[in-house]
Amino acid sequence: MKLRYGMIGGGPGSFIGAIHRKAAAMDARFDLVCGAFSSDAAKSRATGAELGVKAYASFTEMLDAEPDLDAVSIVTPNHVHFAPAKAALERGVHVILDKPMTFTLQEARDLKSLVDRSGLAFALTHTYAGYPMVKEMRHRVAAGEIGPVRKVFVEYPQGWLSASIEAEGQKQAGWRTDPARSGSGGAVGDIGTHAAHLSEYVTGARITQVCAMMNAVVPGRALDDDAAAFLRFDTGATGVLVATQIASGEQNALRIRVYGTTGGYDWCHADPNTLIHKPVDGPMRLIHTGTGYVSEAAKAATRLPAGHPEGFIEAFANLYAGFADAIVDHKAGRFRGMPAHDVPSVEEGLRGMAFVDAMVASGRADTTWTDIRL
Amino acid sequence: MKLRYGMIGGGPGSFIGAIHRKAAAMDARFDLVCGAFSSDAAKSRATGAELGVKAYASFTEMLDAEPDLDAVSIVTPNHVHFAPAKAALERGVHVILDKPMTFTLQEARDLKSLVDRSGLAFALTHTYAGYPMVKEMRHRVAAGEIGPVRKVFVEYPQGWLSASIEAEGQKQAGWRTDPARSGSGGAVGDIGTHAAHLSEYVTGARITQVCAMMNAVVPGRALDDDAAAFLRFDTGATGVLVATQIASGEQNALRIRVYGTTGGYDWCHADPNTLIHKPVDGPMRLIHTGTGYVSEAAKAATRLPAGHPEGFIEAFANLYAGFADAIVDHKAGRFRGMPAHDVPSVEEGLRGMAFVDAMVASGRADTTWTDIRL
Amino acid sequence: MKLRYGMIGGGPGSFIGAIHRKAAAMDARFDLVCGAFSSDAAKSRATGAELGVKAYASFTEMLDAEPDLDAVSIVTPNHVHFAPAKAALERGVHVILDKPMTFTLQEARDLKSLVDRSGLAFALTHTYAGYPMVKEMRHRVAAGEIGPVRKVFVEYPQGWLSASIEAEGQKQAGWRTDPARSGSGGAVGDIGTHAAHLSEYVTGARITQVCAMMNAVVPGRALDDDAAAFLRFDTGATGVLVATQIASGEQNALRIRVYGTTGGYDWCHADPNTLIHKPVDGPMRLIHTGTGYVSEAAKAATRLPAGHPEGFIEAFANLYAGFADAIVDHKAGRFRGMPAHDVPSVEEGLRGMAFVDAMVASGRADTTWTDIRL
Amino acid sequence: MKLRYGMIGGGPGSFIGAIHRKAAAMDARFDLVCGAFSSDAAKSRATGAELGVKAYASFTEMLDAEPDLDAVSIVTPNHVHFAPAKAALERGVHVILDKPMTFTLQEARDLKSLVDRSGLAFALTHTYAGYPMVKEMRHRVAAGEIGPVRKVFVEYPQGWLSASIEAEGQKQAGWRTDPARSGSGGAVGDIGTHAAHLSEYVTGARITQVCAMMNAVVPGRALDDDAAAFLRFDTGATGVLVATQIASGEQNALRIRVYGTTGGYDWCHADPNTLIHKPVDGPMRLIHTGTGYVSEAAKAATRLPAGHPEGFIEAFANLYAGFADAIVDHKAGRFRGMPAHDVPSVEEGLRGMAFVDAMVASGRADTTWTDIRL
Repeated sequence: MKLRYGMIGGGPGSFIGAIHRKAAAMDARFDLVCGAFSSDAAKSRATGAELGVKAYASFTEMLDAEPDLDAVSIVTPNHVHFAPAKAALERGVHVILDKPMTFTLQEARDLKSLVDRSGLAFALTHTYAGYPMVKEMRHRVAAGEIGPVRKVFVEYPQGWLSASIEAEGQKQAGWRTDPARSGSGGAVGDIGTHAAHLSEYVTGARITQVCAMMNAVVPGRALDDDAAAFLRFDTGATGVLVATQIASGEQNALRIRVYGTTGGYDWCHADPNTLIHKPVDGPMRLIHTGTGYVSEAAKAATRLPAGHPEGFIEAFANLYAGFADAIVDHKAGRFRGMPAHDVPSVEEGLRGMAFVDAMVASGRADTTWTDIRL
Repeated sequence: MKLRYGMIGGGPGSFIGAIHRKAAAMDARFDLVCGAFSSDAAKSRATGAELGVKAYASFTEMLDAEPDLDAVSIVTPNHVHFAPAKAALERGVHVILDKPMTFTLQEARDLKSLVDRSGLAFALTHTYAGYPMVKEMRHRVAAGEIGPVRKVFVEYPQGWLSASIEAEGQKQAGWRTDPARSGSGGAVGDIGTHAAHLSEYVTGARITQVCAMMNAVVPGRALDDDAAAFLRFDTGATGVLVATQIASGEQNALRIRVYGTTGGYDWCHADPNTLIHKPVDGPMRLIHTGTGYVSEAAKAATRLPAGHPEGFIEAFANLYAGFADAIVDHKAGRFRGMPAHDVPSVEEGLRGMAFVDAMVASGRADTTWTDIRL
Repeated sequence: MKLRYGMIGGGPGSFIGAIHRKAAAMDARFDLVCGAFSSDAAKSRATGAELGVKAYASFTEMLDAEPDLDAVSIVTPNHVHFAPAKAALERGVHVILDKPMTFTLQEARDLKSLVDRSGLAFALTHTYAGYPMVKEMRHRVAAGEIGPVRKVFVEYPQGWLSASIEAEGQKQAGWRTDPARSGSGGAVGDIGTHAAHLSEYVTGARITQVCAMMNAVVPGRALDDDAAAFLRFDTGATGVLVATQIASGEQNALRIRVYGTTGGYDWCHADPNTLIHKPVDGPMRLIHTGTGYVSEAAKAATRLPAGHPEGFIEAFANLYAGFADAIVDHKAGRFRGMPAHDVPSVEEGLRGMAFVDAMVASGRADTTWTDIRL
Repeated sequence: MKLRYGMIGGGPGSFIGAIHRKAAAMDARFDLVCGAFSSDAAKSRATGAELGVKAYASFTEMLDAEPDLDAVSIVTPNHVHFAPAKAALERGVHVILDKPMTFTLQEARDLKSLVDRSGLAFALTHTYAGYPMVKEMRHRVAAGEIGPVRKVFVEYPQGWLSASIEAEGQKQAGWRTDPARSGSGGAVGDIGTHAAHLSEYVTGARITQVCAMMNAVVPGRALDDDAAAFLRFDTGATGVLVATQIASGEQNALRIRVYGTTGGYDWCHADPNTLIHKPVDGPMRLIHTGTGYVSEAAKAATRLPAGHPEGFIEAFANLYAGFADAIVDHKAGRFRGMPAHDVPSVEEGLRGMAFVDAMVASGRADTTWTDIRL
């Protein structure tokens, strides 16, 4: 039985809306049945017509008119995350939401309360946690293969904001560099939250303090477009995080390396189906998706045999698959929370917003070590 | 409006059936409505139940019971390609079919006649032609960037048949190593046809002669599991082709390199979103999917911005997208044949079967140069 | 005419001494004629016998006994850098010295005065500045190909000190982790100085401030084995530097990336003959040594045609070649200082020691921004 | 004690002469004392002056005038290999010679007799056998890690002869494309012999038959510039060999892959310090030079710790080191032949010439399988 979902956002010019739809469709777990694709009614209708589904001019209208929805997928800019999520939860509709979770840290705290009280399934699309080799790294760290993690390097260099393309009307750049729509963080919110989440996801540790250098490199930017941080984790590990959108010529080069006492792991988004294991005393090993020797967690997130590349949409689809499992469990009365489904949720979203706040505060205070406060 | 399709084959234990379904679903162009998933009625029903669609025990039963199908997707072993394709075409149903196209060359000739007479859309899933950077190579060769192509190296090493896993009941190995189900070619049919097609697709040239070394390396094999060939093209270019399934430790390492008078191209399936251009007089260039500088053909086959990997299912989905376009054109009365949709079709399938025949003949004749005869 | 040199240090168990000798020999510019290979006379004699040259038990003895030396090569631990350099300079002997330049910043200042007054050739073996593709990066930055540099990422991860091998008597680890022989910096002195120098060498900018996290990760270490820093340059650029010796499983993975307004460069020691140029608006380019299109500076530092790898010893030999040129110029009365020979010298050495001092001070002050003071 | 050698060839415009000199110098085992650098006396003197050694106008003059030479290094074009080698051997001088060994197969047979009778050390510079990771592959194959070798792929693509640069006076191209100086083979002699030797060196098997496609692609060429072959080995293994100099844009991309029953190895000259081991049942492994886990053969051929790249000159120097060991043994009366020193010698040179002859014959006979006849 396919689940019925509506989309909020994802109208003309959207980047992420189409990805959500493809990810939801791939494994045939969800049917898109309607959308409030834009607050501009004509634009919403245009997208609806293109997709062959009903369109609404507002999410409240949609939620009221479609009482049988299982879920909504919210793919709007950050300042329009909280309200539709709240509206859906209040109507008993499960929610899958883009990151960063909210516009402000306070909204994140409020949303966490709402989700907790609702008992509903809630997923946050930290896509990279959907990659099988990221899950493999998490599994191997937890299994102790490299000993306790002592050092984390996570970097997320992009170059697409190295010029002021927001001044030329580029829609994606427009809202991301606008404090009124993006929130207090620029690059740190858009991609720094991915990097921070990934560092916690693979290590199982939690960032407790950051010491941040925050720059607005391109003249005229009101938000950071270039961030770096030293990290302290609750396990005693330390780390270095880079999140920049002015690394001219870079595409989407997320990479994470973690080092324990007896080896390290290295994963790059540019080659997502390979995890490199670097033991201290033997050859480096290339762990590949689709092989017989990887963990059950990696196998469950893989559709193809070894040597058949899977990519970003498949990783995204893995989040949708876990979200679907959670909803099915909920319908069956056996839902016990998102962690069982290995999908980032409201806790991770709250941590992300607290990370942004701490980074901004540390940057303003000229690199003072600053606590993550939930 | 979504197109309605039924699947023939793809029951329990199938590898390629699930890929077809995901590829068809991704872009929301097709709805799977039924299937003859297995000739074992219980197995067919089991798959149908799992997928939530009607199941039949035979393709004729399905085709007779479902007169409104737009298309069938045929994903059976080679010896069950011709009959269902013929049955569908005779009922006016468009066909998408796995490669190699048929069991024998004569069947391929017959199928070509049937398709030509039917005027229907017919797609053959040479997946690799669906990759944007393969299309980019084809585009650039045609544009003359490296001058006339003089040399082609195409190789397809796999290692999964390096031991006699068919003797242990592995289903995929079972039929591929069995002349009664696979046809006269083993590795040469299964993957050699991909390599040969790719060499023609990117160069625009046609193989006219082969000189082949064909080996059955694993004891007990009745078909080749290791093939190599020298190639002569109608343009005067020559080539070397390798297709082996006993390259122990290799996964699915298809690679093609072509060299003209002023440069070369290099594409590897292991890194499918990159095309390497090697000019004689300047730095090697890494051409990436999702960038602004690639051809329209590559852009049309890409869903994501640069730095967001796409993979095998997306390439497959590109074939389904072209097939969908062809059907929509057909419904609108403006279908002018598959070449306009950049999807391999019955001509390519016939060429593939003639290639297999020539390779087998050359191998038996101790590497005599042998003509490709359509 | 070959130049005559003596070696100070480089006895049994030395790593770097043998490299100096091979680098000096490769281009047939120098003849090793004697050495004070160890302060243990027997050990010194053993090495001398092995090499077929005269051996002395102390550098003063050697310098007094060998008045015709053109140069000395000093390859001792850090605490024995200043005294032999001073002794050689005072006798009019040119000096090539390992990094970091001295034991303390004050020694570095004193050595700078001595060198300046002497008018002699003085080379500091920041090996990585000898690589042709590092020179190419420097050349291209200076030529403005990527516009003004805004961001620098330089990292130097090693894993060889991830366990307390100094406790097991490993000689290289012993002195490097001992404040009495290494100085105030551990990893930051040993490899952080390479990273800092490289960032200045390729950009032409100067680090003015650092904000450092300094860790002694392995229990019992008195010096840092893991360092990271934010950097501010005199041009307004910022950077992130990592120098760690506890990245378990890493070998010697120095990498530098710089980003300007219109592109970036990326160079890794693991693939030293390739420089990656990443323009914002076109394909990434792989610049290779030995090609016709590289700069004169790169060509002059290359011995082989494209596709013939050169490595660490060749880079080292390039420093010796520049040092030889300087000495030849000096003999001819036309020596105008080391910068003309593109070899790191006492200025760079002083900057390195000031960098170590600032890093240690910033680390102790809990990541306060700290000035580089020469 | 350093060995004294003279060079034959290596005058102005030579590529390989300078490499021999650097390789001989690096490890301080040899002193260049004289040379017959060119048959043009003025050119020979010019090179001698540049190098600071005595120069002669002919090798006979040099050999007669320098009775104390330990060795000669012969780096002339192919048609001037036999005569100086013979002259040196007849005077009791050890010989190190460039490949291919001679101008004709008959000369090779004669030279083998001369060497055998002389009891002198004789080395042939198949450089690639000097790389530590090639030795590692050979060691691991012999140790049976991947089981019996069943398949060999060896390829040597270059692009430097993709245009008729010999017509423009390029010296290296001139003699290599001239039958009067190169012999019966073009690309097959120049680089095909390297590929063939490598395939035998790493497998320990011997090529018994070839089936060759030989092309002169660039108009006007009298010799092949593009060759490919199927190979049969005495062990029952088969292979595919490619040697081409018209692969436009390629540099010097030698690569060898061998596959046994339980895994494969992969080595590329572009990344010479890594050997990839691909087991059938586990992660691919990156074997690196300078590590503790490699074979003694690899360790003995390595000068630096892991992560410090060594390259072509170091590989060349390993041949000189083995040659030096052989001479030292000879002086001590304990020389037992070159195989003990792991350096290619006259047997390998004869096999190479027989390979060229068989390739040329097979190519002329339109790909008939042709025996290797020593």
